[in-house]
Amino acid sequence: MTTRDDVLAAAQRHLNVDARASMADLAGAAGISRATLHRHFASREELLHELGTRSIDRWEASLDAADARGAAASEDAVRIRACLDDLVARYLADSDDFGFALTDTYLLSAADLVERSDALVEREVALCAAAQAAGVLRADLPARWISHALYGLLVAARDALRVGDLPRRDLDALVLSTFLTGAQR
Amino acid sequence: MTTRDDVLAAAQRHLNVDARASMADLAGAAGISRATLHRHFASREELLHELGTRSIDRWEASLDAADARGAAASEDAVRIRACLDDLVARYLADSDDFGFALTDTYLLSAADLVERSDALVEREVALCAAAQAAGVLRADLPARWISHALYGLLVAARDALRVGDLPRRDLDALVLSTFLTGAQR
Repeated sequence: MTTRDDVLAAAQRHLNVDARASMADLAGAAGISRATLHRHFASREELLHELGTRSIDRWEASLDAADARGAAASEDAVRIRACLDDLVARYLADSDDFGFALTDTYLLSAADLVERSDALVEREVALCAAAQAAGVLRADLPARWISHALYGLLVAARDALRVGDLPRRDLDALVLSTFLTGAQR
Repeated sequence: MTTRDDVLAAAQRHLNVDARASMADLAGAAGISRATLHRHFASREELLHELGTRSIDRWEASLDAADARGAAASEDAVRIRACLDDLVARYLADSDDFGFALTDTYLLSAADLVERSDALVEREVALCAAAQAAGVLRADLPARWISHALYGLLVAARDALRVGDLPRRDLDALVLSTFLTGAQR
């Protein structure tokens, strides 16, 4: 039997390949009929919302696992820098599983997801500000912009991987290095 | 009378605010009925395709105006660096007008637009490779990744502006500086 979890997992994989996938496409990807898919999820948005919730759960789990709050509170440059390194690697792994969610316009507009997302952004901004105070990151860039820039590089990494421009193996180092030191020689 | 151009201009502005806007929303934004909008465009995709074509025209025009080809061929570090600076400013101005197109999943999947987009990416990659050869950009980053990273920062800039995190006035310098030298102190 195909469980709700199986359906979600198949839909998630498929959306990472084709972000515009219809309910018919997603049913096909899960190996079930449209009617069966609709018994699990009344609409595409309901299905997406569930995946969006999971992607935000994952984002929150990564901030927790990297102990972003503890690092920010520590005011310790070495610890903050290690936290940033860890976070970039975790975000890239999360993006392997939830890459489509980075730019899905429905998820970016669903009020409850936006509210959770905003709260997580605040944790990132606090970490960036702590990194600036500790001399790890440039103080002349707004902390909020640094958080946006990191997000932009995650989108770039997702796309570079998708079109086959980079091996996955190199991704963590490339993104971290570009984020920290830029492209200039 | 509302011309096809007026309708497109109104739709473009509205999509930059709400990327999920329906045909009804877009008709409202143009101050016309849905029936009138459908006389201009048979479907939302037809309308989007027209705007996608215009956004790629603009992208191409910016590469031309910055003389990316001439700069790349010059092998002149100063000229290449000036071209990169110019291109970043032009891309940010283009994104003011066509920001939604950066991540619209329909535009990113329409075969003819993808083909044109791929050709423009090749011009960017050639410029990045020339910048590396001239010692302007790091040679240890794949040129294709540098092009992706710049795109990611444009997405980040669009979003930072949209949520009001940055003044437009600071954007060119922030994006260029982050692209070139990263966030590390």
